[in-house]
Amino acid sequence: MNNNEPNGKKGTDLIRPGERSDDLQIKGRRIIQSPGRFCFGMDAVLLSAFAHVRPGERALDLGTGTGILPILLEAKYDGSSYTGLEIQEESAGMARRSVALNGLEEKIHIVTGDIKEAASIFGAASFEVITVNPPYMIGGHGLRNDNQALYVARHEALCTIDDVLRESGKLLKDKGRFYMVHRPFRLPELLTKMAGYGLEPKRMRLVHPYVDKEPNMVLLEGLKGGKPRMQIEPPLIVYEKDGNYTGELRALYGE
Amino acid sequence: MNNNEPNGKKGTDLIRPGERSDDLQIKGRRIIQSPGRFCFGMDAVLLSAFAHVRPGERALDLGTGTGILPILLEAKYDGSSYTGLEIQEESAGMARRSVALNGLEEKIHIVTGDIKEAASIFGAASFEVITVNPPYMIGGHGLRNDNQALYVARHEALCTIDDVLRESGKLLKDKGRFYMVHRPFRLPELLTKMAGYGLEPKRMRLVHPYVDKEPNMVLLEGLKGGKPRMQIEPPLIVYEKDGNYTGELRALYGE
Repeated sequence: MNNNEPNGKKGTDLIRPGERSDDLQIKGRRIIQSPGRFCFGMDAVLLSAFAHVRPGERALDLGTGTGILPILLEAKYDGSSYTGLEIQEESAGMARRSVALNGLEEKIHIVTGDIKEAASIFGAASFEVITVNPPYMIGGHGLRNDNQALYVARHEALCTIDDVLRESGKLLKDKGRFYMVHRPFRLPELLTKMAGYGLEPKRMRLVHPYVDKEPNMVLLEGLKGGKPRMQIEPPLIVYEKDGNYTGELRALYGE
Repeated sequence: MNNNEPNGKKGTDLIRPGERSDDLQIKGRRIIQSPGRFCFGMDAVLLSAFAHVRPGERALDLGTGTGILPILLEAKYDGSSYTGLEIQEESAGMARRSVALNGLEEKIHIVTGDIKEAASIFGAASFEVITVNPPYMIGGHGLRNDNQALYVARHEALCTIDDVLRESGKLLKDKGRFYMVHRPFRLPELLTKMAGYGLEPKRMRLVHPYVDKEPNMVLLEGLKGGKPRMQIEPPLIVYEKDGNYTGELRALYGE
């Protein structure tokens, strides 16, 4: 991902001091990020590829941060609209400016609001697809990071996995699809609670840095009102033994 | 595994028409099997390596069939005793003859009985380790296999996963370990029910025939009274691209 400034005057106006705009290597899309604050990671890229939005579907990204998921999903799929919900005003503002930078105001909508109230904000059964890259760490009472945006993105400070799943269960239409990236050490809890909130786990993929290492991410798909039977995909391996990206990862990063 | 007959007269007496004794490639151990009835598979070998019995511990194998798990575990580990519970008298008899063939009557005990009543047969909190290779297929009302032993081993005809987990939760001492091999498509149910019966999932390994194929087995470890946090191990790959066993598999088969 290059961090060259875009050429147009409009682009320059949208980017503030301390920020940069990065080329997402797909359809010329760019994202505004603040390196000292929070930059998207591989988890967002992998989730955008694991998820799928069919033509005409409405997709919601819960806790969208700087809007990386809606921007990547819009570039990859033919959904009718992409909505990002973000509680932190500064991140939501950056996400809106990235949407404007790409000229996507008609397709992508950034809403400032709380995941815990998402179903009342948007109404029940209002999306066919939900994506979420939630905070991985349990609890929000430990040592706090000085960087509030980073802390909220990583710890369950403002919302828990129960909040995410409860609201998603309400927001999805029947047979709607829920896509999440999370940490493998919480897998039993994730699968149990997905089923408990009516988002039956149907598909899973583990992400291993190397083929002989433990996974550090898990990608999950749930089906609203689905019947129990899960497909586990082949392991997603990030690096070859020589430390270079595998062919699958290179393809995901548009190389 | 070779199927040469053992040399001693005693061995010949123990093996009946239609049966053979196979070399297990570990400490000279042999098992009596009936090829037309049921032979152990790779799942038993992988479970015996995934499980662990510490010195002095008592291990129970639920639904032991021809006794492959107790015989392999006794050869690999230094537990104080190994018990196999089997409901089908013919299988239990073969298991007892295999125990005699190996001269292990002091260490391995085969008990004829029903998993559904296992806790009342042995008493609560009477084992440190439980292993189980249960029937994988849901329900026992479909098309029946003419081979009753094979049918019972593969379908939940005589006991369900709930029976296995409920009895295991009672039979294990606090902090006792539960080891199971099962099919990946039932993973959400397995993890949810393990936790529900007090056998907190702590460790998991998926078995993939090839690195780029979906897994066809899952190995699970639960800890009686454990706290939630699961370790997922690197994928266990069975075959190299050329169709030969991987180094890990060759080592497991004593090659």
